[in-house]
Amino acid sequence: MRHLISTRELSKKDMMEIWDIASEIESKRLHKSSWCLLEGKTVTLAFFEPSTRTRLSFQLAAKRLCANVLPTVGEEALSLAKGESFHDTVMVLDELSDVLVIRHWMEGAAKYASEIAKHAIVNAGDGRNYHPTQTLIDLYTVKKRFGTIDGLSFALVGDLRYARTAKSLLMALTKFNVKSIYIVAPPQLKPHPWIVEELRRNNVRVFETDNLNEIIGMVDVLYVTRIQKERIPDPAEYEKLRGSYRVTLELVKRGKSDLLVLHPLPRLDELDYEIDSTPHAGYLEQVRVAVPVRMAALAWSYGVV
Amino acid sequence: MRHLISTRELSKKDMMEIWDIASEIESKRLHKSSWCLLEGKTVTLAFFEPSTRTRLSFQLAAKRLCANVLPTVGEEALSLAKGESFHDTVMVLDELSDVLVIRHWMEGAAKYASEIAKHAIVNAGDGRNYHPTQTLIDLYTVKKRFGTIDGLSFALVGDLRYARTAKSLLMALTKFNVKSIYIVAPPQLKPHPWIVEELRRNNVRVFETDNLNEIIGMVDVLYVTRIQKERIPDPAEYEKLRGSYRVTLELVKRGKSDLLVLHPLPRLDELDYEIDSTPHAGYLEQVRVAVPVRMAALAWSYGVV
Amino acid sequence: MRHLISTRELSKKDMMEIWDIASEIESKRLHKSSWCLLEGKTVTLAFFEPSTRTRLSFQLAAKRLCANVLPTVGEEALSLAKGESFHDTVMVLDELSDVLVIRHWMEGAAKYASEIAKHAIVNAGDGRNYHPTQTLIDLYTVKKRFGTIDGLSFALVGDLRYARTAKSLLMALTKFNVKSIYIVAPPQLKPHPWIVEELRRNNVRVFETDNLNEIIGMVDVLYVTRIQKERIPDPAEYEKLRGSYRVTLELVKRGKSDLLVLHPLPRLDELDYEIDSTPHAGYLEQVRVAVPVRMAALAWSYGVV
Repeated sequence: MRHLISTRELSKKDMMEIWDIASEIESKRLHKSSWCLLEGKTVTLAFFEPSTRTRLSFQLAAKRLCANVLPTVGEEALSLAKGESFHDTVMVLDELSDVLVIRHWMEGAAKYASEIAKHAIVNAGDGRNYHPTQTLIDLYTVKKRFGTIDGLSFALVGDLRYARTAKSLLMALTKFNVKSIYIVAPPQLKPHPWIVEELRRNNVRVFETDNLNEIIGMVDVLYVTRIQKERIPDPAEYEKLRGSYRVTLELVKRGKSDLLVLHPLPRLDELDYEIDSTPHAGYLEQVRVAVPVRMAALAWSYGVV
Repeated sequence: MRHLISTRELSKKDMMEIWDIASEIESKRLHKSSWCLLEGKTVTLAFFEPSTRTRLSFQLAAKRLCANVLPTVGEEALSLAKGESFHDTVMVLDELSDVLVIRHWMEGAAKYASEIAKHAIVNAGDGRNYHPTQTLIDLYTVKKRFGTIDGLSFALVGDLRYARTAKSLLMALTKFNVKSIYIVAPPQLKPHPWIVEELRRNNVRVFETDNLNEIIGMVDVLYVTRIQKERIPDPAEYEKLRGSYRVTLELVKRGKSDLLVLHPLPRLDELDYEIDSTPHAGYLEQVRVAVPVRMAALAWSYGVV
Repeated sequence: MRHLISTRELSKKDMMEIWDIASEIESKRLHKSSWCLLEGKTVTLAFFEPSTRTRLSFQLAAKRLCANVLPTVGEEALSLAKGESFHDTVMVLDELSDVLVIRHWMEGAAKYASEIAKHAIVNAGDGRNYHPTQTLIDLYTVKKRFGTIDGLSFALVGDLRYARTAKSLLMALTKFNVKSIYIVAPPQLKPHPWIVEELRRNNVRVFETDNLNEIIGMVDVLYVTRIQKERIPDPAEYEKLRGSYRVTLELVKRGKSDLLVLHPLPRLDELDYEIDSTPHAGYLEQVRVAVPVRMAALAWSYGVV
């Protein structure tokens, strides 16, 4: 049994293992029986924060592994309305579950849960902190397209400070020999300096810019994130920021011919709909591989693979 | 793969096909294994509007077909809270699903979704527009009772303008050789003139009245609908209307001996509880056949039958 | 088919039967196939009041019995928003279900439902009235620990007037030859006199006290309940009460060496966290056995065992 808490704690070997399982699951689509790795087991989805695609793809992943799925959504449903502590909620859900998937608005919630629980905890996003299965999906999509992660150049655009998807991805990239990372964000949305230092300590060349046009020709993967309204207190500032980092079809066309555009979704208007029908769009592939990658992550975490 | 969007687009042949499957499913109740027409497939229920019986019976129908069911309820859960467009929500759910069942408060939502999705869309009600599986259930109940739909006389009572169940039923009846249709509604709740014209163009004799007593002796099927509070802006007018079209046991007793009373439910006080225990009551049969008919509709839409 | 409405109506024989099944289920954990007692059947969870552990453990219990589970949560989802009567909601859900599990804020709701439904009703808590499966879990935990219920001494602490778990337990204890029951509650939270009379009529020695220290050495089972905020109108009074009946590790250590501490959960601060890691803590065992006991109750109620 292994907790899956953050991309900081996951090694490159761990990630490669999970991707190998995901790849096998993808190739065996027609051999349903071999998927039932969690038959008779219970996977509980404790989502203390609203979510669609993460919850649904975990739910589908667990069902495809033949697990019983307990989907609990919302704090009210989670009995906190009656004043129960997070400690007790985890303790109780842990008794009912073989794997406990937790999404929480509080940084560190999954880590704290892993100290209480006897069964595997999978972090499905904790506040502004980590969202490791999203990163596993992101990089699996990259690996499927390019055959490798090492040697590639990435640009990350948008909110790189408050978006846990961006933080998780940057931290995971410290484990690979990527060529360069371009940080494209306004000053207040740049990643925390310690993350950039961590990247540089791992010999990644990191460039900071606020001009996408200058660097678009040099990148293999363009990772776009939504500027999260709920993370920016001032509405006026939010409006200004969301306008300034739009990725258009015109921009994408000036990039490499095999440029891969990723987005963890949902998007607002930071990513043009016109890109959807081009081969550059990788975000539907991200949705598509989410289920096999999360199947692999659940099975890996439970310890059957 | 076939979308199931409206009773306008469904042909008589389509409906007969779906009913044949439903009938076969009903007769094979004990042979569970033969039902697993959607084994390993995913049916997603995207309900942007609250619903009990429709959602539950779709959920049960999909489960009985051995599908994985992803029940997503509510706009918040559907990530629209984060500002995602309906387009993107459909695009993402479509990636995860083999059949996507949509209920939405917006007329045309299912149709629009069918233009985005690669998989089958089933309309579970779009605003004041269509609710085709309800009509399939309604007419299947009629066919089970009378062996036919052709040659029968129908009276529709209540809100025939804003209730999508009434609109869907009237539109479906244009495809059959029914004898007569009695429209029993106050002026502001009469069906749109183009629907009545469509009926007449298809050689259905349509009579409009606001007096149920006069025509009760001539009808085979009495279809009662709730006057939908949420569709009538003025509360005073609503109170007046709901009182004026009550169907009582006394009224029903003055009808034909094999009069069939249908109601899509939920009811308020437009239909007396005393009728429940008489052989005239067909609304529990509607609830009962909802699951096999929706199983048939899902299987038909997915394309396995 | 048998309704399971209250511990008043359940006989000692009924309870013993259910526990025998639960015990068999527990011992057969590895033989999954033999659990499928409700294969192809539908269990609907109609929860008109929020709940986590009860709903989740019923859901898991039903799934482990291989039933199709329809989880409906909340009044809005239950179509009451459209003005439907409880009568009609039950009538409709009954058509779709083989067993209907109901939680409701209204005393008597499950009983009323059992008069409408053709299928088995299981009460999952009706207002301040009964919560029979919780009592079955509580006493099963006692029986597992001590091998018997007869001859033991119980202390019940906290809110013994408004908590349905306490009322249900006291009523169930009238069916056994327990030695003594200590009622530890402030005057306004003492049980209704008729329950105490019922206990005494069944030859149970009942002592009332508000001092836990005096009696802790004489009890085998200490049953602690939350003082339910939502049941005490005055916030100031609530604060005073919740402070006065705390069960501490120090207190527990002064009890018998095999003292069993039970709590239906969720807890606020009436039960010290320090007790969790001692052998006295039985509340996690309660959570653990909740699933097999509810499996047994569902199967018993449906009538397959």
